[in-house]
Amino acid sequence: MNVVTAKDELKSKIAEYKKQNKSIGFVPTMGFLHEGHLKLIEEARKGNDIVILSIFVNPLQFGPNEDFESYPRDQQRDEELANSSGVDLVFLPSVNEMYPQSPGYTISVQSRVNVLCGKSRVGHFDGVATILTKLFHLIEPNRAYFGMKDAQQVAVVEGLVEELNFPIEIVPVSTIREADGLAKSSRNVYLNKEERREAPSLYRSLVIAKEEIVKGNTNFEEIKEMIKAYITQNTSGVIDYIEILTYPQLEEIKVPKGKVILAIAVKFSKARLIDNITVEI
Amino acid sequence: MNVVTAKDELKSKIAEYKKQNKSIGFVPTMGFLHEGHLKLIEEARKGNDIVILSIFVNPLQFGPNEDFESYPRDQQRDEELANSSGVDLVFLPSVNEMYPQSPGYTISVQSRVNVLCGKSRVGHFDGVATILTKLFHLIEPNRAYFGMKDAQQVAVVEGLVEELNFPIEIVPVSTIREADGLAKSSRNVYLNKEERREAPSLYRSLVIAKEEIVKGNTNFEEIKEMIKAYITQNTSGVIDYIEILTYPQLEEIKVPKGKVILAIAVKFSKARLIDNITVEI
Repeated sequence: MNVVTAKDELKSKIAEYKKQNKSIGFVPTMGFLHEGHLKLIEEARKGNDIVILSIFVNPLQFGPNEDFESYPRDQQRDEELANSSGVDLVFLPSVNEMYPQSPGYTISVQSRVNVLCGKSRVGHFDGVATILTKLFHLIEPNRAYFGMKDAQQVAVVEGLVEELNFPIEIVPVSTIREADGLAKSSRNVYLNKEERREAPSLYRSLVIAKEEIVKGNTNFEEIKEMIKAYITQNTSGVIDYIEILTYPQLEEIKVPKGKVILAIAVKFSKARLIDNITVEI
Repeated sequence: MNVVTAKDELKSKIAEYKKQNKSIGFVPTMGFLHEGHLKLIEEARKGNDIVILSIFVNPLQFGPNEDFESYPRDQQRDEELANSSGVDLVFLPSVNEMYPQSPGYTISVQSRVNVLCGKSRVGHFDGVATILTKLFHLIEPNRAYFGMKDAQQVAVVEGLVEELNFPIEIVPVSTIREADGLAKSSRNVYLNKEERREAPSLYRSLVIAKEEIVKGNTNFEEIKEMIKAYITQNTSGVIDYIEILTYPQLEEIKVPKGKVILAIAVKFSKARLIDNITVEI
C-alpha cells in the first residue's frame, strides 16, 4: 500500500494508473476508520482496479463552535486498517497541503442544504463540496463511495456531481450498524455509558415509523410526533430535528409517492448523533 | 466538423476521443467570433489532436444591468469560421441545457476579483468560474485557451485551476489588435464612428506608460496620471479604472519587481472597452 502526503506525488501515481487504463474507486474519509468505512472500501474493491482512500479532517466543513480540534484521529490504526482492507493508496495530506492559503475559490451550495443538518451547520456543505472538488480533481476517480449514514451528504454530493457535470459515478452504501442497531460513527466514542445504552433508540424510532408508513399511514406530522415521543421516552438526548422529506431532493412531501427519508439528529452530552432510513412509498 | 448541442452527445464524443488517446484543446467563447478567437483556435490546433470550441453566452456572468440580451450573436457565421479554422467539434448548448434549473452549486471566487472589472462587476467571475467548471468537466480538455485581452479572467481562471486542482493546463494567448492598435473585441461593434476613431488611444496610452516603466520610472501613481491625461485628451470616453498591479496575483505592488499589469476600462456611449499590457520589471 502506498502512503502519499503530497499532491504532486499523488498526481504522478494517478497518471500511472490512468496510463495502465486502471479504473479508480475513491473513498474520501476524515479517518478514525470504523466498519462503515471498511464497507465503503469493500464496495470500492469490488467495482474497481484501484482503491484510493483519503484521510483528511477538513477544517472548511467545521463551524467555529464545532469539533474540528477534538475530532478523533488515529493515523497509525487507520493505515493498518486500510492496508488490511486492500486499499492500494492512502492519501494523507496536511491542512497546509490542501489549503496552502486562505481559500480563494470555494463551492457554494444552495441546493438540498436548508434542511436537516444543513440548517444548523451553515457553510458545512460548502466545505464538503469544496474539499471533494479538490480531491476529485486530484484523484480523477471513476467512482466515489459515500455512506448513507450521512444521507444529506450523499444527496448534496449527488447534486454537485450531476449539476457540475463531474465525470464521476457516486455510489451510496448502506449504513453499517452495531448489533443493537446504533449506526457506526466516529463520534460514538464521545457517548458516555448511559448514553451508549440509550442510543439504539434512535434507530428503533425510525424502524417503528417506517413500519407505520409501510402500513399506509401518510400523516407525516403524526409520524414525526411518534418518533419524538419514542426518543424522548427512551433517551436523555435533546432532539435537534426530526424530518420526513423527499429523497434525494430533500424537499417537503407534496404527494406521498416515491422515495422519502426519515431523518433525525439528537444531541447527547458530548455527541450529536444522526441517523436516517429511507422508504419507498 | 461536429456541431453538438446536447451534453450527453458531447460526453459520448469525448469518451471516443479519450479512448483513442487524443489530446483535447478547448477554446471556450461567447461566440461572435473575431480574430482574437481564431488565434486561440490556432494555438489549440498547434498543441492538441482535437480542438473543441464552445459557444455559449452565459447568463450567470452578466449582471442585472448588463448586456446579456443584447450581446451580439451570429451562430451561422460562427460555425463557418470555426469550420474553416480547423475546429473538430463545436459545442453550442442552449441556456436550458447548461442550467436546467436555477443554479444550486456555484463557484464563489474570493481571489483576484476585488480589483479591475471585478470591482464593478460583482458576481461576474463567480459566473465565469461556474460555467467553466461545468464545461471543463464535460470536455475534460488537456489544455484550455484564453485571450490576454481579458487579463483578469486569465488570472482568475489560472487561480481556479491551480487552487481546485483541475487536471488542465491554462494557456494564455496574446491580445490580437486592429492595425491601429485597438484590441479586437465582440463589443467593438457597439462603438460609433467617432468613438471607433478615438478607441486606439486606449492602447497608445498603455504603450507610452509601459515605455515609462521600462525606462525605470516606478512612480505608479504618476504613471496612472499620465494614462488618465492621455485618454481624457484623446477620447470622449469616461474612465472606469486605471490600475497597475502585480500579475497574476492582481495585488498592490509593494516591491517594483516581477511582472506587473497596466489595465484600463473606459466607457463609451454604448460600449465599455478594456485593455491591458504587462511589463516585466
